[in-house]
Order: sequence, then structure tokens, then C-alpha cells
Amino acid sequence: MIKAAVIGATGYAGAELVRLLTGHPEVELSTLCSRQYAQKPFSEVYPAFAGTVDRVCEAVDVEHIAEKADVVFTALPHKIPMEIVPRLLHQGLRVIDLSADFRFKDAKTYEAYYEPHLAKDLLEKAVYGLSEIYGDKIRGADLIGNPGCYPTCSMLPLIPLIKAGLIDPDTFIIDAKSGVSGAGRGLSLATQFCQVNDSFKAYKVSAHRHTPEIEAILSETAGRPVVVGFTPHLVPMSRGMLCTIYAEMDDDIDETRVRECLVDAYAKSPFVRIMQPATFPETLQVKGTNYCDIGFTIDARVGRIKLISVIDNLVKGAAGQAVQNFNLMFDAKETAGLDGVSWPI
Amino acid sequence: MIKAAVIGATGYAGAELVRLLTGHPEVELSTLCSRQYAQKPFSEVYPAFAGTVDRVCEAVDVEHIAEKADVVFTALPHKIPMEIVPRLLHQGLRVIDLSADFRFKDAKTYEAYYEPHLAKDLLEKAVYGLSEIYGDKIRGADLIGNPGCYPTCSMLPLIPLIKAGLIDPDTFIIDAKSGVSGAGRGLSLATQFCQVNDSFKAYKVSAHRHTPEIEAILSETAGRPVVVGFTPHLVPMSRGMLCTIYAEMDDDIDETRVRECLVDAYAKSPFVRIMQPATFPETLQVKGTNYCDIGFTIDARVGRIKLISVIDNLVKGAAGQAVQNFNLMFDAKETAGLDGVSWPI
Amino acid sequence: MIKAAVIGATGYAGAELVRLLTGHPEVELSTLCSRQYAQKPFSEVYPAFAGTVDRVCEAVDVEHIAEKADVVFTALPHKIPMEIVPRLLHQGLRVIDLSADFRFKDAKTYEAYYEPHLAKDLLEKAVYGLSEIYGDKIRGADLIGNPGCYPTCSMLPLIPLIKAGLIDPDTFIIDAKSGVSGAGRGLSLATQFCQVNDSFKAYKVSAHRHTPEIEAILSETAGRPVVVGFTPHLVPMSRGMLCTIYAEMDDDIDETRVRECLVDAYAKSPFVRIMQPATFPETLQVKGTNYCDIGFTIDARVGRIKLISVIDNLVKGAAGQAVQNFNLMFDAKETAGLDGVSWPI
Amino acid sequence: MIKAAVIGATGYAGAELVRLLTGHPEVELSTLCSRQYAQKPFSEVYPAFAGTVDRVCEAVDVEHIAEKADVVFTALPHKIPMEIVPRLLHQGLRVIDLSADFRFKDAKTYEAYYEPHLAKDLLEKAVYGLSEIYGDKIRGADLIGNPGCYPTCSMLPLIPLIKAGLIDPDTFIIDAKSGVSGAGRGLSLATQFCQVNDSFKAYKVSAHRHTPEIEAILSETAGRPVVVGFTPHLVPMSRGMLCTIYAEMDDDIDETRVRECLVDAYAKSPFVRIMQPATFPETLQVKGTNYCDIGFTIDARVGRIKLISVIDNLVKGAAGQAVQNFNLMFDAKETAGLDGVSWPI
Repeated sequence: MIKAAVIGATGYAGAELVRLLTGHPEVELSTLCSRQYAQKPFSEVYPAFAGTVDRVCEAVDVEHIAEKADVVFTALPHKIPMEIVPRLLHQGLRVIDLSADFRFKDAKTYEAYYEPHLAKDLLEKAVYGLSEIYGDKIRGADLIGNPGCYPTCSMLPLIPLIKAGLIDPDTFIIDAKSGVSGAGRGLSLATQFCQVNDSFKAYKVSAHRHTPEIEAILSETAGRPVVVGFTPHLVPMSRGMLCTIYAEMDDDIDETRVRECLVDAYAKSPFVRIMQPATFPETLQVKGTNYCDIGFTIDARVGRIKLISVIDNLVKGAAGQAVQNFNLMFDAKETAGLDGVSWPI
Repeated sequence: MIKAAVIGATGYAGAELVRLLTGHPEVELSTLCSRQYAQKPFSEVYPAFAGTVDRVCEAVDVEHIAEKADVVFTALPHKIPMEIVPRLLHQGLRVIDLSADFRFKDAKTYEAYYEPHLAKDLLEKAVYGLSEIYGDKIRGADLIGNPGCYPTCSMLPLIPLIKAGLIDPDTFIIDAKSGVSGAGRGLSLATQFCQVNDSFKAYKVSAHRHTPEIEAILSETAGRPVVVGFTPHLVPMSRGMLCTIYAEMDDDIDETRVRECLVDAYAKSPFVRIMQPATFPETLQVKGTNYCDIGFTIDARVGRIKLISVIDNLVKGAAGQAVQNFNLMFDAKETAGLDGVSWPI
Repeated sequence: MIKAAVIGATGYAGAELVRLLTGHPEVELSTLCSRQYAQKPFSEVYPAFAGTVDRVCEAVDVEHIAEKADVVFTALPHKIPMEIVPRLLHQGLRVIDLSADFRFKDAKTYEAYYEPHLAKDLLEKAVYGLSEIYGDKIRGADLIGNPGCYPTCSMLPLIPLIKAGLIDPDTFIIDAKSGVSGAGRGLSLATQFCQVNDSFKAYKVSAHRHTPEIEAILSETAGRPVVVGFTPHLVPMSRGMLCTIYAEMDDDIDETRVRECLVDAYAKSPFVRIMQPATFPETLQVKGTNYCDIGFTIDARVGRIKLISVIDNLVKGAAGQAVQNFNLMFDAKETAGLDGVSWPI
Repeated sequence: MIKAAVIGATGYAGAELVRLLTGHPEVELSTLCSRQYAQKPFSEVYPAFAGTVDRVCEAVDVEHIAEKADVVFTALPHKIPMEIVPRLLHQGLRVIDLSADFRFKDAKTYEAYYEPHLAKDLLEKAVYGLSEIYGDKIRGADLIGNPGCYPTCSMLPLIPLIKAGLIDPDTFIIDAKSGVSGAGRGLSLATQFCQVNDSFKAYKVSAHRHTPEIEAILSETAGRPVVVGFTPHLVPMSRGMLCTIYAEMDDDIDETRVRECLVDAYAKSPFVRIMQPATFPETLQVKGTNYCDIGFTIDARVGRIKLISVIDNLVKGAAGQAVQNFNLMFDAKETAGLDGVSWPI
């Protein structure tokens, strides 16, 4: 059994990690840390876990964690990880960080959108944890920068098509829609029930921090600078994310060729499902699971492909992909702890 | 007082018409027709109207309606209006039809997306009821083809910019999101609560019948054929619609110029509100009202404008715009019956 | 025109007051006060009001208000009104207070559930604003303690039956369900979207502060001490409240007699609607309106009546009843500003 | 491996059975029958199951099922099971029926609320599948009448207290609230999204068919006739059920004694969790699981206990309890296939 600690266990992504790791056959969850709920049983914060995870949350103590864990999942607001992670690594721990702090190779990009980086020397060492794409590097990594939810959902359909040269990288529009849990468990007026319920809106229009993350990876993929138009929206639902992605393509590329490209790219990926032609995914079908389901159609009249992808933002978009990366890092079955069957409704 | 009849009064758009006309200072609601609920009091179908609209619903009888009404609102599934409307007009009634049957000048377009047209001779005579754009024609019309919800929401922001030559008509992408009431009151699995709640999906991808309606009007506006990429999505909310619209534009056009263009275009329009720079509308703010609120930003990095517009699909997208057209046709104040203040939440 | 001020205009009840007073034919809304948003236009806080209420919110200044208003609505958390209201009255203003501060005749009861009372001398003078029951006193009042939402919804069905001696006051069980807006606009984890959405729970079980309010009024009605079992629940919806009320009654009382009692009691009340036998209200049918709709059935097998009543907690349960009380106080038509037709959905 | 068939696999309870049985370590799901979707892959009806349950649905063929299965779960509307189940038993199959057809010992009671019974001879043989209470009988049974959701949720808290003589069986009031999936997947106006969303109502007031089911079992428990006041309500959520139960009790019984009674009764029951004093469950905490969580408080002022219990209506209220009964019948671990950890949100 591999011993795991979760720091930030009582946030939404952290609690989802606790859920997944509790059911993982090769993990012993040895430590839960929570700044806000230190000394409280986890099941008091989340009564769903009564009888299953009654363990008391602890304050963060790096040395203490090192004694009890082999791997640490940090599920914290950005900035805090870059203070803690160097010390965790120094103790010989392997780290999967769910924040943005270790997702960028280029500190300048991070600093342009976030703030001064305090652990720049780790950026080169850190591996971007988009499991299906960077699996080989992830296997040997000690530090994973686990991807954002929007980047995961929008890049999985795009990357194989870019690599195959089927779409024009200068024309990407990502119109993204997310459930409310993406904003986390912190209090804010914008996520109060009455402000969200029975309404729909865009937010952080042309200003969301996941934009540079997407552009950095897609630029690397395309071998030249890619900029994308990105617009996130808020859906009155708890979990789930759907990206509608538009790209221009040559007239002579048909749906068969696109389908082959996607099916081939993910032939060995247990969590990416390419939908049948002319069918499109809804977020319901991946709720609580680590799947990314992808549908597409070519709108020949306008010379564009529309790709529609869905994930559960807390699972494939956060905790689930972190566990998938853990599986790769520790040579477990890729689906270990992630094989639960989905809900019909 | 002008006497009005509503045919199809117990559908969602019909019932919304009843709500608005009941509060209209110059209207006497003389007849409510419902196929499904003939002989039942309207307030038995919609208990919200108990004490206000207890009138009994009637089966459709064109001669009888002609005796009691000056104007008829037909809120029926397409195909039925093209059978009834000629007879209503023949009786000297003026008609505002909320279906697609009289929205197209070109019967061929209609027939390509719907079915054989049975009243082609009326198509030239019918006026497309996008109130802010075609007000002059609407004033003198006897037959209005009331616009679809998606066309209303997406074209109000686009038309002034097309006219001013600020955007490239070959590059329009309309990513639209609608509440569930847009599907009407008829039973279907797709609109059952458990299929929609806490989920999000696209539907009729590249196949929605509002596409040719948008293209016909925008082509007329641009003076040349315009095709648009259109993708509708279903939001787990009852009312409301938001369109995120992408268009390419020249680098030298700035937000000030766009703003002036939109503000000028709607300076005399009481129901179009241009948001302040860098603010964007949510559907909540127009719920139950006839407003179309528009925000925008220029994403200079990709050379595109993003326009975000919201309406209540049952009001400005259906019944409210029908009443607005009525006001224009009968020389009432444009806001009569439509001046209710919105809800804070 | 009567000049009105709203203090606490940007909370949910306050904003609802602004909505209703804006449409009131005899009111000029002269002043909006908000602690949190002083110096901001009201429509910046609630964009629904853009173009309608762009007035800038002010900090509270009693003398300044007195110059500009005849009546003040205070929509503030309890405790603050008892500090401000005496000064408002001193300036000759009439006051309708939406908090609990002036609902109790007996300071001790208030103090047992809230905190030390700072304006006890006003309690005798204040009139409990349950409009249908205390209309005569309300007409002459200078200070109204506007009722809580639960007390309004649960007592309107009970009071006539108590007065008629049809039900046993020792047996009342009130199982109440409320939308989330009842908790107000303040931030709390319990009202964050993801904590409420797609879930249901009881809260403040046997501990809700509306219990003593209900008991005080029902005891006065019955002429002897009445205690009630009261359990509030939280429904994942923004607005609306439903109370299911159980009471024992003699076997020889039938539904006809109960119906007559309720119909007679509210024969002159425009906002109470007694449903047809064997039909029961849902919260949807009163949304946005000042109605209280009541259905009932006698469960002869167990010797109990079940009464089901619904209101919009923000309207009849707060701002609407306040306006109704205003109408009574200022001799306006009882329905002025409150006659909007309900929504079908 | 025990081979299982599900008849009615594409309804909501049936699909939930498929989900649970797919993850069950001792079950091989050999046959899925669906009247509506015969010849369609299950995953085409429920895309969540793509890659996991692509098996094609079949029409019902009793002999064919007998060849391939050891046990059959029938998840069908009442009336159909009493036609099929005798034939299934005749083939030597063991049957767990989720309808009401085999829940009553007394055919007259069934017939008073449902319709003429076609398999009365099986009623004595059938075992009522309230797992925690009738475990011993369930172990040896060939035919289980799986309980209704409301009976399960309301009787688990009541039965131990009745047995211990702590509460007065003549005073039970069950105020129940259910998510929409309880109504099943069939089309109806009452479960269309726009009729349910953001609203709350009671339904089948004093007329719900689960009333006689509750009364039959509680009468058996109490050893004398028990009638209950039962009122079901509809909550705008997909899954979940909460019962607020009121009963009178003697003054000298305190919360400690009640707690001991409940804790003792369920000491060996892995799925019943008694909450800590003064805490109460919400439906969220049991979503997707087989738990029944129970909280309570004594309202000494009125001499009544309030019990609050929650279940997932599709799991403990239907498919989950059916699997639990299967585990008892086939001597598997009681939690087999049901040990998934709950979701934090």
C-alpha cells in the first residue's frame, strides 16, 4: 500500500480526492490536512463520510507528513503550494499539486497572470499532468502540475487534431461552460445559491487564467505560438463542464478522417470516449467519473469543425486526473480507484 | 380598448401572452383558445391566474373570434398557423403569429427546414417582427411573423455592427444557450426534470431551424449571402437565453467605436440596453421582461469581438416581442403592457 | 405622491421593496440607503434595474431622510432597526420595519430569542403587520412590525379556524419549507450553491426564531397559551414558501364547514385565495406576487386537518406585505403596486 | 458468480440496478430486458455506460432468462410483475420485485389501492424486503417484495421506537419530501422541468399508495392497527428523500434513551447511521449510496419527538435495497456492491 496525504482536504477538490483515494485499492490515506478544520473529524465537515472517513484533520506539518506518507496531493489555492511543495520534495515526498503553481514552464507567463513565483527552479522539473498526453513523463516525475479543468476539457479534443495537422491553430474558439463547484468552496456572492440558480452568465470574459495555460500547451503541441479565444460561462449545476470548440479546417477533411484521428489517439486511453457520429455528450454522463467524452461534427457550410467535450470538473478536471497521475507515477493500473460506474441520472 | 384573442393560450408562450395582455392598459382579452383545454377555465390550467383570468378556454372558431376580436395572437406549433391564419385575415383580423410559418420571405427556405408551405401568397405580405429593426413596416402590417428566440437574441447585437461595416459577415459564430421553456409545454423525455437537472448539453448541433431564419435576415442586412455557425445548448433553468457571438473585425476598430455604434442604433429603443464597458449581462437580469441586454469586448489578441446578449426567451423571444409588435401596429406606447420592473433575484 | 425611503435597499427584501415601490402609482421613491453599497448606483448592484432605478445608494442619515420622505421601510438585520427607528419616528416619519425588532408586545419573549431590546417603549405602540388580520390597527399606525415569512404563511390559514373554534390549538404542527432567499443576501456556506443544489434538509430544528412570533399571535388569537411544533426546511429554489400544517379537529366538522370558514374570513382580502376542494397550491403559482394561496383536506382516518399554504417569501413574506401595510396606512387601494399578474412558469 | 437478470432495465430504478450490479463482485449481469428499448444497446439509452454496459436490451422471454440467470430483479410498473413473476418462480428463479405487487400480505389492502391481484397465492410466500428488519426471513426467501421508498425512509426510524414502546403509535405524522426521480422515467406534465424547477408542492395529499404499505408493517410491528398521517411533497432535485416524522411520547423519555434505542437497533446494520445529537441529515449526504441517516430531537414543549431520516430514493429506496436483499439471499457480504463512498457535493 502506498501512503498518501492530502493537504487542503476539505475544499471541494480535496474532498473529492478523499473520496477517490478511500476507494483506491493500493492507497492508504494516512493524513488529511485542513487549515480551516484542523482538529475536526473529516466526517463532521462532510457527513457523507460518516463511518468511512472519521479521521481528524490536521494542520500542515511537513516533517510529520513525511513520516507518514509517500506521496502528497496538494489541493490548495495557488501561491500556497509554491511555499510548501519545495519542502515536501526536500523530504523525499512525491507531490501532485492541483493548483496552477507548477503548470507553467515559463515563470513569466505564470507571473503575468498570477503573481511572483517563489519556486522557479522547480518549474523545469515539474511535469504537466495531462495524463493522456504526457503519460511517459508523468511516470517518472516527482512533481506534477495537475492541469486546470478548462485546459483538460478543451485540449483533449484539440491536441490529436493539431498533431495530425487537421485543424488550423490560428482559429480556435473555446466556448466553455462550467458547474459552480469549479469556483471552490470559499464564500463569494457570485456563488451564492440565489445569484446562480435559474440563471446563466459568462464570467472573466477574455480574462480567465486558464487561457495562458491552454496557449502554452497548444503552442508546444503546434510547434509555434497559438492564441485562443476563450470564454467561460457559469451553469446552474454543481458539477460538470462542457466545452464547445470551433476550429477552421480544410474542405477536403471529412468526419471519417477526424474520427479515425481521435479514436486512434485515444485507443489505449481508458478515460477518453469518442462518441458515435452525430451524437454529442452531456455533462450528466460523466458525473462523478474520470471520463472525458468527445463528440464532433463538421459544419461544411462554414468550413469549421465543432468539437464538444465534457468532463466532471472535480474528477477529470481535478481530483480524478490527480489520481490517474498517481497511478502512472506509482505503476498502478491506470484506472485504479477510478473505475466506478456512472449514474444513469 | 382593442380586443385581442390568443389561440394556443395554454402553451408556455401563449400563457405568457395572457399574462402580458392581462396587464396591458389598452387591451381587452376577449378570447382564449386551447385545443387541449377547451371548456376548462384558464386558471385551472395555470392556478397562478386564479381570480385574474378565470375565463374558459374555447376551441378555435374563426368566425366567432372575428366577432369578438380586433387582433389575434397565434401561439401554436408551426404548420397549424398556415392553415388558420389565412382565414383569420380573411375575416379582417390582424394577426401576430409566433410560429415560424410567416417568418420567411422565401418559401423554399422554409420548406427546406420545415415542410410544404400552404399559404405562400402571404409570405410577401407578412412582416418579420424584429421590432427594433423593422418597426416602420410593422406599424402598417396586418400579419406579423414574430421572430424566433435565438434569432432575436443573436441578431439584435449583430445588425447594427453589420450595417456599420464594423464586422466581417463571413465569420459569425453564435454559441447560444437557452432555458428549457424554449422547448414548449409538450411532453418529451429530453425536457423531463431528471434528464435536464444539474446537467448541460448541446442539442440540434448544426441542425437547428433557427439557423436559416438568422441567415435570411442577416443576408438581407449585409446585402450578400451570410452563413453562420450556430450551436444551441440547453441550460437547467426555466427561462432565459444567452448568446455568445464571435466575429472577426479589423484591428483599428476599438471598443469606443463599437459602443457608439450600438448605443446610437438603439438610442430610441426602450428595450435594448447596452451594458457598461467590461460588464456582461446574465439572464437573471432580464427574467420576465422584454429587455435585450448586450455586453461586448474586443479580444485584440485574436482579432475578434465577443458580443454577449441576453433575453427572456418567453418574453422578448416570444410573447413580449409579440406585444411590442402589437403596440407598434395599434399605435400604442411601445412599452405598454411591458413596463414591469424586473426581479432582483 | 407619498415619498418613501428604503433603508437596507440592497438586501433581497430591500431590493424587492424597490421593485414593488417603483411600480407603485402613489409612491415616489426618494431615498435608497445601503451600508454596503453607499455611493453606488442601485442598478450597478442589481443590473435588472438599469434604466429604471439608477439612483445612487446613500449612507443612512436620519435628518436627511426626514427631509425627503414621509415613510421609511427598514429592511435590515434585527438589532439595527431598534437603534434607528426611534430617531426616524422622532422626525415625524412613519416606519414599516421588516425585522423582528417590533413584532413582539412582550420584550421578554424577544429577548429570550434575540437580544436585549433597546426601544422597549415602542413595543406597545408598534402594530403587528399581518395585514388581513390587523388591518384596522395598521391603518392608524406609525410603526409596523412587519411579520416574518413563516408566521405569515402558517398563521393565515390557522387564525380563522382558531377563531371559529374548529381546530384544537394544542395540536398544531407546522412543517415549513422555504426557498433560499429567506436566508438573505449575506454570505454563508449554508447558502452557497453547491451546498444547497439538488439537496434538501431541515435546519434550526425546534430552534427557529419565528416560533415565538407564531406562538405569541396564536395565543392572543386563541385567548390562551398556544405552543406549536415548528420545523423549517430548505428547498433548492430561490423564492417561495410552503407550510404543511396539521391540527386535530372534531369528527363532526366537514370540509364544507372549513371551506366556508376560510372563504368568509378572507372574502374581502384580495391576496388570500382559498383553493378549490381537493386541490393544493404549489409555490410557483404565487412567485413574485403578494398572494397567499391555501388548500386543505380533512384526513378523517386520523382526525386531523391538513392545511397547505404558499407565499412568495420575499413578497407576502416580506416586501409585498410591507407595501400592503403601507397601502392601509396611507389609505391607498390595498392592491396598489401589488397587482402584477403572476407568471405561468 | 451469481447470474442476474434485470427486467425493466431502462427505467430509473432499473438503470440504477444495472449500475450497482455492474460493480458487484459476485454478480454477472447476464440479461437486461426493456420493453421500450429492446434491441438497443443499454449504453445508447444511458451514454454514461458506454464501454461498461454496451449489452443489447432484450424483450422479456421467461424461458430464455431462466437459462441464463439465477436471480431476476423486476423493476416494472405494478401489475406487470404479478403476471411475470409466477412464471419466473416456476422456472426456479429467485425474484426480487421492486413494484408494489408483492409487498402486501393482505390482497384486499393491495386491491383497495391498486387493482385486482392476479397472484394472490404468492403473497404469503413473498417476504417484505425491509432489509434491516426482516433480514432473517429475507435470507431464505425466493420472492422479495422490495419496499417502497417512502416506507423505507419513514419506517426505519419508527420501528425500533415502536418496538421499545417509546412512542405512541396513534400519533404518527409523516411529512415526506422526495426528489423527482421517484416518479420514474415515464413522461408526464407533472415531471417536466419547467413544472418542477424552482417550485415546491405537495402531491397525492392523503392519497398516496405508500400509506397502506406503511400502515400494514407498522401495525404488524405494534401488534395493533396503526394509521398514519402521510403527506408527500415534490422537491426540485433529481434524487433524495427526507421524512420529517412526528410522534407523541411520554415526558419522562429523554434523548439519551431514544438514541440508545436507535443505536442498539442498528448496531449491526452497515447502512443505518444515527446522527450525533442535535445534528440532522440532508439528502446530499446519502446521494448515490444505500445509507439511511437518521437524526432526531425531542420537542419537550409539545411532548413530541421529531425524527428526520434521509435516503437516496433510487438506492436504499429501490435498487440499493434490492441489492442488499440479494446479498442476504445469496449469503454475500451485506455491503457487497454497495460500498462506494459518497460524494462530498
